[in-house]
Order: sequence, then structure tokens, then C-alpha cells
Amino acid sequence: MVELSGGRLRHVAHGVIATGPEDAMPVRLAYLYKCVDELLTDYHPDCVCVERLFFKQNVTNGITVAQARGVILLAAAQRDLPIGEFSPTEAKTAVTGYGRAEKRQVQEMTRLLLGLEERPRPDDAADALALAICMLQNRSGLPFPSIPPGRKDRP
Amino acid sequence: MVELSGGRLRHVAHGVIATGPEDAMPVRLAYLYKCVDELLTDYHPDCVCVERLFFKQNVTNGITVAQARGVILLAAAQRDLPIGEFSPTEAKTAVTGYGRAEKRQVQEMTRLLLGLEERPRPDDAADALALAICMLQNRSGLPFPSIPPGRKDRP
Repeated sequence: MVELSGGRLRHVAHGVIATGPEDAMPVRLAYLYKCVDELLTDYHPDCVCVERLFFKQNVTNGITVAQARGVILLAAAQRDLPIGEFSPTEAKTAVTGYGRAEKRQVQEMTRLLLGLEERPRPDDAADALALAICMLQNRSGLPFPSIPPGRKDRP
Repeated sequence: MVELSGGRLRHVAHGVIATGPEDAMPVRLAYLYKCVDELLTDYHPDCVCVERLFFKQNVTNGITVAQARGVILLAAAQRDLPIGEFSPTEAKTAVTGYGRAEKRQVQEMTRLLLGLEERPRPDDAADALALAICMLQNRSGLPFPSIPPGRKDRP
């Protein structure tokens, strides 16, 4: 969750929804939906973004991810929220200006842009924050090419 | 929708949920969810089955199908319904005794097993009925190897 206000980015929250690997897939999907739905109630965002899916090697895993993605899209659509879809390359470009930046660079720039003390963790949550910055840049038309003034030295 | 009562199959309903191809995917998923949820309310089935997914050629289409499948699994899971997952081969075997039966044979046997006047249409709905028969056979332990007595001559 990232806020854009007066041309400035603000970190609101980040995290990962973990479902029980021992549970049946429908149960995990129901839990995911419940969590996403509660987050949308609690934070009432203006828009939602999801990563564009590419299936390359692990197709079975791809089915699982796409099913989960369908549930997330549903939760957002039920609230008529605009949904953005961006590739990892687009997110990297938005945050670092370079689509093939390394994971550490992207995380470090995300940290600086959001004024966080530490790199966001875990990796999936860091990816999500970069994606959110990408969407806000896309919607606002504002580029975030450099670290906002005064943010460099924040603790 | 198929009912098994006293060792006999009964056709309840079949059909296809068509979403607007011009609508955005989240909107289509929300419509699909609403329809499935209403069907579960109206028919209150004891269980639900879905076709096992295999991605071979069209991976982009596969993502779309898997997202829709996630929404269907969610609707069933939210009602704590048992969910069966069967491959097309399993469904064909359940209905015709032969996993590589042709589509027409499967549809004709489905028609006879359910005492329908005509082959169910469209193809997707016919596939769904065969899958439902497969699940009932699986759950009941009853095979339906031949047309039930008295059904052969039904109009």
C-alpha cells in the first residue's frame, strides 16, 4: 500500500498473505479472498495493481498463481476499483529507470523512494511496493526518477 | 447439475455462463462469481466438480481459464462444498468406459444416462454433465457402465 500525495510517495503498509500449504487449494483461495477483502475494507485504496503473469517453465505452479490472481481481481472488481497490470520489467523501470536492474537495486530504490529505514521484506512484498509505485507513476503521469528531496537522509 | 438418487442418475440442469468478451477481465470474473454463487444458492448442490487443467499450447488462454477456475473454486469453498477435480479422460471413462472415446460418443452416452431427448449443448455444457456423472460415480462407488434399465427407450 503506497500513497501519492502532493507529488510525494508515502509508504502505508506492505506484507504477504501466506496460506496453509497443507490445505486444499479451494480453502487457500477462500482464505486469500477473505484477507484481500478485509485489506480493501481497512485501507480503502483508490486502485489496485497486480503483476502481469508469464508462464515459462513451471506451468503447474502457473495454474496455482493464476487461480489466486483471479480471486484477487475478483475482490477488486467487486468494489469497482481500477486495476493496473504491470510486468516486473515495467516496475523495475518505474523505480530505477532501468528495466533489467538487479533485485537489490530495485529494493534499495524502493526503500529510498518510500523513506523506509530498511529494505522491504520479504522479496514478494518488496516487488509489490515497486509495482504500486509503478502504477502511481502511470496514473499520475509523474515520473519518480530520483529520490525525493529530503528523503536521502531520513533514518 | 446431476442428481444421483437410489442408484439412478437424473438430469437437473446444464448450461454455460457467457461473459462479455468486450469487458475487462476483472469485470468478467465478477460476473462469473455472481452467476456461480446464485446457482449454488438456487440448486444447493452437495458437491461441485471442475475439470483438471492442462496447459499445452495456448498459455495465455490458460491464464484466463485458471483465473476463472479460481473464482469458481472460491465460490464452492465459501460454502464448504466438497470439490472434485477430474480430467477429461476420467470423465470419458466414467461415461463410456473408454478414456479415448470420441466427443459424439461421450455426448450420446451422457444423453442416454441422463434420459435426455437430445444431446446436451453446447459442447462445454455436455462436458460438464459428463464430469458431474464422473464425480457421482466416484463418490458413490457405483459404476454406470451401461444405460440404466428403462432408459433406452425413453423419448
